Amino acid sequence: MSASTFSPAAARDAVQRVRGDAPADEEVVARALWSLMTEPGDGVAGRVVSALGARTAAEQALFGTAPALAGVAPVELAAARARWRPRLQSAQHALGDALERARRCGARLVVPGDAEWPARVEDLGEHAPHALWMRGDVDGLDAQPAVALVGARAASGYGEHVAAELGAEVGASGVTIVSGAAYGIDGAAHRGALASGSRTIALLAGGVDRPYPAGHAELIGRIAAHGAVIAETPCGTAPSKWRFLARNRLIAALSDATVVVEAGVRSGSLNTAAHAASLGRALGAVPGPVTSAASAGCHRILREFDGTCVTGPDDVREMLGWDRSAAGGGERGPSREMQRLLDAASTRAARGADELAQRSGLAVADVQALVGLAVLEGTLLSGEHGWRRAASR
Amino acid sequence: MSASTFSPAAARDAVQRVRGDAPADEEVVARALWSLMTEPGDGVAGRVVSALGARTAAEQALFGTAPALAGVAPVELAAARARWRPRLQSAQHALGDALERARRCGARLVVPGDAEWPARVEDLGEHAPHALWMRGDVDGLDAQPAVALVGARAASGYGEHVAAELGAEVGASGVTIVSGAAYGIDGAAHRGALASGSRTIALLAGGVDRPYPAGHAELIGRIAAHGAVIAETPCGTAPSKWRFLARNRLIAALSDATVVVEAGVRSGSLNTAAHAASLGRALGAVPGPVTSAASAGCHRILREFDGTCVTGPDDVREMLGWDRSAAGGGERGPSREMQRLLDAASTRAARGADELAQRSGLAVADVQALVGLAVLEGTLLSGEHGWRRAASR
Repeated sequence: MSASTFSPAAARDAVQRVRGDAPADEEVVARALWSLMTEPGDGVAGRVVSALGARTAAEQALFGTAPALAGVAPVELAAARARWRPRLQSAQHALGDALERARRCGARLVVPGDAEWPARVEDLGEHAPHALWMRGDVDGLDAQPAVALVGARAASGYGEHVAAELGAEVGASGVTIVSGAAYGIDGAAHRGALASGSRTIALLAGGVDRPYPAGHAELIGRIAAHGAVIAETPCGTAPSKWRFLARNRLIAALSDATVVVEAGVRSGSLNTAAHAASLGRALGAVPGPVTSAASAGCHRILREFDGTCVTGPDDVREMLGWDRSAAGGGERGPSREMQRLLDAASTRAARGADELAQRSGLAVADVQALVGLAVLEGTLLSGEHGWRRAASR
Repeated sequence: MSASTFSPAAARDAVQRVRGDAPADEEVVARALWSLMTEPGDGVAGRVVSALGARTAAEQALFGTAPALAGVAPVELAAARARWRPRLQSAQHALGDALERARRCGARLVVPGDAEWPARVEDLGEHAPHALWMRGDVDGLDAQPAVALVGARAASGYGEHVAAELGAEVGASGVTIVSGAAYGIDGAAHRGALASGSRTIALLAGGVDRPYPAGHAELIGRIAAHGAVIAETPCGTAPSKWRFLARNRLIAALSDATVVVEAGVRSGSLNTAAHAASLGRALGAVPGPVTSAASAGCHRILREFDGTCVTGPDDVREMLGWDRSAAGGGERGPSREMQRLLDAASTRAARGADELAQRSGLAVADVQALVGLAVLEGTLLSGEHGWRRAASR
């Protein structure tokens, strides 16, 4: 239960093996340690690390005894030390194990300052991850727009169809498709993106060496091969309900917009939606039949969270700031007066201007002006005794 | 083409026959005349009638020659006269015919000031109707909340099911169900209301003596018998496309809220929705599958008009200002710390406080506090060597 069980030099060597060309200084080792000692989203840890740097924070907060630190009151620090220290005992072993597992599955340890570090997660403030463990290619993650397509495991055929279509079509416009690799909506969104050759990223609640769910091991492997699989929990960590909830905040943070495709009223994807909203990210939901329980959570997002109603790829692109294409929506019906003139005309009997005026409630002069236009447009046909309406109105 | 074809005394006698106990003075006759001479929603007519009263307005604007009137510029008045006068010629005959038809079908002529006049339509300002022709019982129309349930004629089985259910259940809470008697959604909403013994009102685009569509003659008869059938166009008037559009503003105005149940992107019910929005009335839409063209207009209302997402009767009642019942929504999950403790416990092996602290990332003291609560709640079972998780978590 003391710092003596921890050997910085051995740890640095092990860390270097999962850093590629990036440096593995003591700051990086300390970040790896923090990601091991704390559960995701530990705000006190986040605060001391950003105030002091990971290494100094570890020395003073984790191993030290000072009663208070910058930005952390004594009582808060004491409580935090009490929850960090039960893991200190086995820290050296746990870190070695995590690094060895990462090395074996080809995962890299990425920390703030690395080229691959996604700046978007910094919006989480003190709840940002200390480090990320990544499999696959995450180059230029920040340069590309990203959308989270998430939803219930218990999805309907309708939901999976829509998720796959959105994943494929939004992905094909150069948007990274972010999701959680779960059964149902998540899986369909990833598969859609892969099918259109688009980049897709899976955020896992446990270590990236432990594909979860097991039935998606092959899918997660394909995501790692064509996109990236990312977790903040070290390799070897089992997913837990808490870690799923914490993972959801990363899905929201890594995306410019979150769209819930299908979700029951108690679905975990509502938690992702809440994170997106609190981060000020665009939030949308795909509607479905009100008779379908699988869409009830989406309707809650539309009603209570003021989410955008997403009916297709264009709506998602619009949430990302794309200009909606000029196609559609521009066509207009006849003017009020023209409508009344056309109502007054018959397809069978030709009617004169006086009769058309009387039937339409328009002035004779207006009728005379409008019939000319209507004849040009082909909606009225002129004859000897007046005008008839063209049949295909 | 002059006032000489019009006999006030004869007209007053004919009007009295469709007024029941209400008076039939010259003001009422003039309103009947205005409703005959103008197409629905004629703003200039609305302005002169409300400025001068119907009779004086008729004398000065309809029959007179003064170049300008209160609130109406010379050029506007000249244009208005030019569209009103083509009908002047046949006015006496047309009025007699409309009144005789009204008498035969039992319709009453209702004007502002009558007990049956619905004050809600005054919100239309200069576009308010001059008079309404009513079949059925419209007592206390203003005292009861009212909701318009409207939508496409080309409705799906899903849409008709939802419309009928909303009509029945919202109606059963004492809300008048207003609609347009069309095929599809309108008909289903009326039928639902009738099935639950609720009041329902149909607004027609033509005269109330001409049930439209013909296939709904029996339904419209039942609505007249158990609720009311209302039109602003005099009896004998054929519906026209313009009159349908104008009728839609009355549906919106007579209702505290408008809900579009199913509508294509070009459905006339979007016009009703636009009227509701411009009147400041609550506007909602029922979502449906994004793969269904019959719901595309509803989704447009949700997305572009900021409509309320309506998934059931409670949502409609909430739009009308009802308090949502306390049932549901109050249940909460375990706290974050409790969730992490439960994650750390096993259903098979009992674990001590130290191990639970290490696995959960919580302080030992917190674990000790939480296990007590968890045992009380039945989520943990205490044994000799620590705590196990109850199986039915």
